[in-house]
Amino acid sequence: MSGLAGRGRDALAVVLVGDELLLADVVDVNGVWLGRRLAEAGLRVVSTTQAPDDVAAIVTAIRRALMDAPSVIVTGGLGPTSDDRTTAAIAAMSDTATSIPNPVGSAAGIRLQQADGVVYALPGVPREMRAMAEASVLPDVLSRAGDLPVTRRRSLRLVGLTESAAAARLVPLEDRLAHDRGATIAYVPSPGEIEIRLTVRRDADQAAAEAALQTYMSMAAEALGPAVYGVDHDSLAAVVIRTLVRNRITCATAESLTGGALGAALTDIPGSSAAYRGGVVAYATDLKHRLLGVPAYHLARRGAVDKTTAIVMAEEVRMRLAADFGVATTGVAGPDEQEGKPPGMVFVAAAGPDMAPVANALLLTGDRGTVRRRAVVHALDLLRRAVLGLPMESPAAPRR
Amino acid sequence: MSGLAGRGRDALAVVLVGDELLLADVVDVNGVWLGRRLAEAGLRVVSTTQAPDDVAAIVTAIRRALMDAPSVIVTGGLGPTSDDRTTAAIAAMSDTATSIPNPVGSAAGIRLQQADGVVYALPGVPREMRAMAEASVLPDVLSRAGDLPVTRRRSLRLVGLTESAAAARLVPLEDRLAHDRGATIAYVPSPGEIEIRLTVRRDADQAAAEAALQTYMSMAAEALGPAVYGVDHDSLAAVVIRTLVRNRITCATAESLTGGALGAALTDIPGSSAAYRGGVVAYATDLKHRLLGVPAYHLARRGAVDKTTAIVMAEEVRMRLAADFGVATTGVAGPDEQEGKPPGMVFVAAAGPDMAPVANALLLTGDRGTVRRRAVVHALDLLRRAVLGLPMESPAAPRR
Repeated sequence: MSGLAGRGRDALAVVLVGDELLLADVVDVNGVWLGRRLAEAGLRVVSTTQAPDDVAAIVTAIRRALMDAPSVIVTGGLGPTSDDRTTAAIAAMSDTATSIPNPVGSAAGIRLQQADGVVYALPGVPREMRAMAEASVLPDVLSRAGDLPVTRRRSLRLVGLTESAAAARLVPLEDRLAHDRGATIAYVPSPGEIEIRLTVRRDADQAAAEAALQTYMSMAAEALGPAVYGVDHDSLAAVVIRTLVRNRITCATAESLTGGALGAALTDIPGSSAAYRGGVVAYATDLKHRLLGVPAYHLARRGAVDKTTAIVMAEEVRMRLAADFGVATTGVAGPDEQEGKPPGMVFVAAAGPDMAPVANALLLTGDRGTVRRRAVVHALDLLRRAVLGLPMESPAAPRR
Repeated sequence: MSGLAGRGRDALAVVLVGDELLLADVVDVNGVWLGRRLAEAGLRVVSTTQAPDDVAAIVTAIRRALMDAPSVIVTGGLGPTSDDRTTAAIAAMSDTATSIPNPVGSAAGIRLQQADGVVYALPGVPREMRAMAEASVLPDVLSRAGDLPVTRRRSLRLVGLTESAAAARLVPLEDRLAHDRGATIAYVPSPGEIEIRLTVRRDADQAAAEAALQTYMSMAAEALGPAVYGVDHDSLAAVVIRTLVRNRITCATAESLTGGALGAALTDIPGSSAAYRGGVVAYATDLKHRLLGVPAYHLARRGAVDKTTAIVMAEEVRMRLAADFGVATTGVAGPDEQEGKPPGMVFVAAAGPDMAPVANALLLTGDRGTVRRRAVVHALDLLRRAVLGLPMESPAAPRR
């Protein structure tokens, strides 16, 4: 059964106002942010409702929300134009309304005390909603709720392991979590990566929650080894850039199927200019010879989608661009095959000082965009491992 | 007042079941798809609720939804595991339940006839939900609703104009739409681009809706001129690749601040290898000389972020990579200034046969990622205009 249901003092209901939400003309960022932030604060969101810009519909949604929970957060409909109806709805229900200050904008919020709970109406502008929720609403809800269970959550970020391979290594941890009713583990995959989310809930004991979480994080990190590239909000590209900068090492990229996406991922990180020199996108096969010196006879005999081609690309780009490390991608993104090789066949290679060049042969699943994203992730991971002197995963492992 | 409110025969309410939605652990794709698809079919979504995996909570949500609308679509909670509770909720309410076939998966849906309406329960797996909604639910809802107003919607996609500049050109169209109560226009901006959405609603007259929409589309396209790069689901990169392939023209990219993102955008399009040769990412300043022949004295005197630098990059990359057209980006992505130039200062240039090279100086707003995305859009647009021989927008226009 759900741990979320039921009208307890830690329950909270959300009402999101706006025709544009029901028409899906805009993406609901406020509901997502509130869901995460409130869970983090130890509160349970027991219902979330989208209502149109209509006074009667908003009043109905708020009345229902008050049946679900003693605290209700309403977002949207506080603006000055004719389609902003929340203020009128609140006025129609009004017992005792006070205003909620807005530190970053002009529209104040409204705090409405009702017999069965408190309604907090906030603007729909995400930046203002967040600032007001943090500054005024959360502290008020938490003080009204009294001592709540404490929830702490952290993540490990993995690359180069399948979900089942990661789960196999975490069997001892899972066994231990089975005896802790307040702890959960979740696997959240994205192309080429997995986030392992550990959550610990303890009754009003922050130190106990944090100590348990730290123990579980250590167990997981040890079991997973070098597949763990970071924690919490780290991104693989940011970790690579951070590692390069810290070690005063530079890199360059040679790309075929990723078409520039590997360089784009690295330069997305502020400060990357201290570590990333540049790259060559040799998309047409003859450019692999012309710009990167892959021998023409090799390209003619073995093709562009080939392990040796990838290694030469990595070696040459590091020499020609005067970088410490070179990293290369070549492969078939799809949807069509190429050189008789299937979509998803990809080679990534890395070369650097004091090491023999390394390459991985991959067979990646997914559509064109997914194959390209996974190729970028594998290339970044190969560079990370080469720079840190970590063992490479076996080529079979990253297949998923 | 909202056109969405009220319990008419074209009203529909949505209930999304799952703890993971309330915790915002997953993104709600089903609600978004249903909102768009149902609006397209002429139905009004009058409320959308997220409920936890709990029988009582699901029953409450469905009962409320039936107060809002005579048709209710429930997604999620139909699976085989212990946290799937929708089947039990439906059983608890049951009057007359029949099963809804699933053409693409194993879990059948449930159609429940209640005194005050019909509930359609579908699996949460998006692919299955969509297939069943299309094949069974929508036809049933529409036949129960009888003759509905017909809604038709189309979009024009613009680049290189601000929202206010586009709106100024559309004043005559807006005046005309003010006299058509069934027609609306919406401006949906994204970095560097605007989507203009035209919607026409007519009472049960498809031909009238389509004729009116066509008239408004033509008026808008004529007023906006070459800023219109495509319609409906077109993307700018796809239009550029299509144009190049159709004219048997090739291109190459020379990138600095975009770091490969321009090449990545072009190669994201299937079939791009027929038009895109490759590129150079000259991120470090010395590589602009080394790989692209920008004179060292020019770089020393004027810097890398400079109009002439951009033009030389575009010219040289087309020569060195043997492409018909070259397109280049250089600028300051931020967050820090560079060469004393502020974040957002960007130059894009294009060079080709039978034309003098062209360049635009831009001052782009937004964070690092937004500046980079906008620079890519402006570079793609410059290439599109150069290839098609269209006039360039004035440098000031794209600032927003």
